Amino acid sequence: MSSDQITDPVADQIRTVLDGRWAKTRQALRADDRFPVAVPALELGLEEHRQRTLEMTTALTRTDLVRGGLPPSVGGTGDLGASVTGLEMIGHGDLSVFVKAGVQFGLFGGAIANLGTERHHERYLPGMADLSLPGCFAMTETGHGSDVQSILTTATHDPETDELVIHSPSHAARKDYIGGAARDARLAAVFAQLVVGGETHGVHCVLVPIRDESGAAMPGVTISDCGSKMGLRGVDNGRLMFDEVRVPRENLLNRYGDIDDEGRYTSPIESVNRRFFTMLGTLVRGRITVGAGAGAAARSALAIAIRYGTRRTQFTYPDGEHEVVILDYLGHQRKLLPRLAKSYALALAQNRVVEKMAAIDSGEVTGESEQRELEARAAGLKAITTEHATDTIQTCREACGGAGYMSLNRFTDLKADTDVFTTFEGDNTVLLQLVAKGMLTNYASDFADLDTRGAILFGARQLTTSVIERTIGGSLIQRLISGAPGKDGDDALLDRGGQLAFFEDRESHLTETLALRLRRVSDDEADSFAVFNAAQDHLLDAARAHMDRVTLEAFVTAIDEAAQGPGRDLLEKVCDLFVFSTVEANRAWFMEHGRLSASQSKGVVARVNELCAELRPHVGTLVDGFGIPDAWLTTEMMDDLARF
Amino acid sequence: MSSDQITDPVADQIRTVLDGRWAKTRQALRADDRFPVAVPALELGLEEHRQRTLEMTTALTRTDLVRGGLPPSVGGTGDLGASVTGLEMIGHGDLSVFVKAGVQFGLFGGAIANLGTERHHERYLPGMADLSLPGCFAMTETGHGSDVQSILTTATHDPETDELVIHSPSHAARKDYIGGAARDARLAAVFAQLVVGGETHGVHCVLVPIRDESGAAMPGVTISDCGSKMGLRGVDNGRLMFDEVRVPRENLLNRYGDIDDEGRYTSPIESVNRRFFTMLGTLVRGRITVGAGAGAAARSALAIAIRYGTRRTQFTYPDGEHEVVILDYLGHQRKLLPRLAKSYALALAQNRVVEKMAAIDSGEVTGESEQRELEARAAGLKAITTEHATDTIQTCREACGGAGYMSLNRFTDLKADTDVFTTFEGDNTVLLQLVAKGMLTNYASDFADLDTRGAILFGARQLTTSVIERTIGGSLIQRLISGAPGKDGDDALLDRGGQLAFFEDRESHLTETLALRLRRVSDDEADSFAVFNAAQDHLLDAARAHMDRVTLEAFVTAIDEAAQGPGRDLLEKVCDLFVFSTVEANRAWFMEHGRLSASQSKGVVARVNELCAELRPHVGTLVDGFGIPDAWLTTEMMDDLARF
Repeated sequence: MSSDQITDPVADQIRTVLDGRWAKTRQALRADDRFPVAVPALELGLEEHRQRTLEMTTALTRTDLVRGGLPPSVGGTGDLGASVTGLEMIGHGDLSVFVKAGVQFGLFGGAIANLGTERHHERYLPGMADLSLPGCFAMTETGHGSDVQSILTTATHDPETDELVIHSPSHAARKDYIGGAARDARLAAVFAQLVVGGETHGVHCVLVPIRDESGAAMPGVTISDCGSKMGLRGVDNGRLMFDEVRVPRENLLNRYGDIDDEGRYTSPIESVNRRFFTMLGTLVRGRITVGAGAGAAARSALAIAIRYGTRRTQFTYPDGEHEVVILDYLGHQRKLLPRLAKSYALALAQNRVVEKMAAIDSGEVTGESEQRELEARAAGLKAITTEHATDTIQTCREACGGAGYMSLNRFTDLKADTDVFTTFEGDNTVLLQLVAKGMLTNYASDFADLDTRGAILFGARQLTTSVIERTIGGSLIQRLISGAPGKDGDDALLDRGGQLAFFEDRESHLTETLALRLRRVSDDEADSFAVFNAAQDHLLDAARAHMDRVTLEAFVTAIDEAAQGPGRDLLEKVCDLFVFSTVEANRAWFMEHGRLSASQSKGVVARVNELCAELRPHVGTLVDGFGIPDAWLTTEMMDDLARF
Repeated sequence: MSSDQITDPVADQIRTVLDGRWAKTRQALRADDRFPVAVPALELGLEEHRQRTLEMTTALTRTDLVRGGLPPSVGGTGDLGASVTGLEMIGHGDLSVFVKAGVQFGLFGGAIANLGTERHHERYLPGMADLSLPGCFAMTETGHGSDVQSILTTATHDPETDELVIHSPSHAARKDYIGGAARDARLAAVFAQLVVGGETHGVHCVLVPIRDESGAAMPGVTISDCGSKMGLRGVDNGRLMFDEVRVPRENLLNRYGDIDDEGRYTSPIESVNRRFFTMLGTLVRGRITVGAGAGAAARSALAIAIRYGTRRTQFTYPDGEHEVVILDYLGHQRKLLPRLAKSYALALAQNRVVEKMAAIDSGEVTGESEQRELEARAAGLKAITTEHATDTIQTCREACGGAGYMSLNRFTDLKADTDVFTTFEGDNTVLLQLVAKGMLTNYASDFADLDTRGAILFGARQLTTSVIERTIGGSLIQRLISGAPGKDGDDALLDRGGQLAFFEDRESHLTETLALRLRRVSDDEADSFAVFNAAQDHLLDAARAHMDRVTLEAFVTAIDEAAQGPGRDLLEKVCDLFVFSTVEANRAWFMEHGRLSASQSKGVVARVNELCAELRPHVGTLVDGFGIPDAWLTTEMMDDLARF
């Protein structure tokens, strides 16, 4: 998207499709001169970098991004979709700001908003929102990251003083990697095992002051700095240890568990497991945001690498005179164009998840199974989008050769800053298991009392035939599949309905056979682990197949809703490339299971090559369609090319 | 390898196999307290980091690493194998030092040694070797990296003064990314188009002083700093522009092209192309070194991640009490163990290439086709090893979760520093094309006058049936294949000979069908490019198949030469995992071409899982077998685990 050149109407049509429901939020940020454009920090000192990040984050406080995350009761709009979409846009900018803002407004603010009650909202949310009260989200410990349920920090109620005593019993209990803890945060949302009347009630969240107004650590709180990291240098990650730190009972975020005036524990949810998953479920926004930011960063990388690839030449044609534009090489197209297609698919799937989140948050959609499905979808999309970002940014760096290695060409920060996205807000492997849990239990509430492995094993026993839940564009997808010319023919993949059926079939088969394998589990505990573990690769495949199908459905639905025109036609072709390159990547599976013959499989590979060639003339339009302002994508290497 | 604990005799046996012919060089560096152990630079200033790197590099000047690269005429040992092996060891240490040393002793020193003659050796090599004369290797330009033949810098002979005039005619001609140029180098080995008597004779190398003793730029030389990069912060990459800079005619490195006293150009090689490829071929050492360093870095990453994986726990067993060691999860084994097996395979293939290089350098092996084969092998091994390193270090980082993102746990530098290895010393895609060239032309000298594309196209026309050249372990491999129970049986892959035949068959088929496709090229130039380009993915596949086969042969040969014992038995199993995971990664191809049935393919996947389980108890021994001293692998996260 260039402001200097005549606007490409096809790119505009495409951008409208990608912008989705919160287009206004996107446009406002594109026009906002406070947008934290990514400027490589180069040799900026650590303290200066952190200060710059804090200032850029503070500048965002008046935007939709922050107001959307605030309930109307404290002056916000409560438009959660605008908030997440706004943060997604920041994913095109400075990623330290993206994370700093995500921690403050999303995690810290989200914990108070979702786990706290009115008294916490009134007292803390205004300061959270204008950053006069910098906070942090202290969940992960050195010894337990993915397994939050096993954290060791305790919050023990002392009936004598009616206080909660926060304590770190061991080195493994140290809160670790906590964004904001090293420098800025004054209040921490601390997750701890709540002990009341000598009984443990599972993980709860307590607000604990960690610094006074002067910035000094509070008594009993030991703060240390995580120091140098791979990226996100502007984010002050730190570590916290608590030595019997006392806070008033009111500091317990008490929506799902409280201590009454008689010092008794009360909760609207009886089961410890269900309570735990309910509390964590309300924090789904953070996971959705990380996926959104990863997708945005991948699109930035592709926009840079593809534009460079259409200008950079290397080696001459056989005429010995003209040099070949590198994106005219098949090998180069194969690196960038399937990833471009997948980026479109994931961005559209992301929009659907944000819509669903907003619908549930506003009460438009209700029900436990809808919430569960959102959590699984968010987990899966976070996993595949962050994996895609890591892979895509790496490929784009390499596609720009030595220039790609220079910080002024942006890949340095894009790579280093996003690298941890596959880990934080849930390790991707763990998240994909959450997806499988949803598939096998069909998001039924019956399994809420079990942990993930338990739910998967019991779900597998219940499942007779895999139910494909089409929650988005259901009738459209059904219509397309019904109109497809039959799955077995040579031309199954030439038709959108046939493609959808093909993706569904893979998911169903993987799910049903997974369930069969897991049913072999006996009641013997050791055997239960062994059977589950032996099927782990199968389970992860099933989760990926599910996400591929869901992503394709989002793509198809978005095209269906788009206005007729050349932009829509181009998206149809991009969708084809997404389909064929996804099938290509999994074609061994399709052959192993009799879904593709050897010659059909070769045909899929050939079709990817053809689609790359067909899309090659349109790549400029397609990266313009991302809607990333030129000023956000400035690189030294493009300036260099202009001077040749 | 721990100095504190009782030595594992099995690990020792394995280390002996990996150490190979230059075990003494490796042992000397393991015991050398000047070894540049990697200490994350954290918040060290840029100038301090560069100075530290220079000092650490200078400390190496008395080692085999430097003396091995010097001819005996100037006080060296001329043991090139020791030199490259020594640098490989530094790849386990500080990678800025690895690159700084590689530039000074390998590229700069190598250019003078191989492209220069006695007068250059005497005058410059001693200073090169003790770093009193810091140099740089100025080949790449902003406009031309992979296509060195098209660089724009000129070196024009002025018969009036008998000088060479070095000139950068445009921005595209700027020398770029030149290690050492920004700060330390005083003398540059500048590659330029040599113009004598108004005629251009192709790329030659000229020594050009770029700084005086005080460090100031020489007249006419404009030096700038590349500034911040993704990694290798201790290496001072810079840019050079020459404005009619004059140097004496004697500064031309004149082994393959000279100017006589009458101002006439002379060369022992008539063809411009052949001369160019001959000159570049002598620089093969740099490429071999980069592959070696990448392999070492990948092994360091695996050693760290695997040791962590055997200690770190997460989530409980169904008993609800004990926590699961993360490397007991199948998913985690699948991330790390196939990469461990490939690391062994590549390290052994690397040893063979170094042996061959040394044999050619010493004159023990002669002939143009041997040299060509070495170049192709070095190019291919550099490509697949650097790709493997990028992939493996990334996976290891993720396998250590949030801890993997902290600089003190080493992945920050391992990732950032090695990232450019896929690019420098030849972009991997371009290098794989060089491999294909060798395969199609069978390293015959007939094609030396053609560029890569031309040689491939003509080679394809000549090739009738693909000849598998077994230059290493030829008779052993033949014996194993002959003894295999027939390729078509279900058990083809259960026998080493059958595995070798399977790998060979893939390479032959890909090569022969590639040749058939390329023969369709007509004499029409545009068509020639189109046909070549349409087959580019096929060509890259053929090159990869070739490298897989060569790597397996190296593994098999090394096992055959090893002493009987449990170490050797363990290596047999590691070799099996390399075979099955390689077949698994390519199983779609094997099914498409009727080499595997659907059920056999599923069996391959299952066998990888089984082998992971069988190797799991031996991972400690296998990473000890890498022979990396514990002190070089210190991380904060292992200290943390010890404190739980």
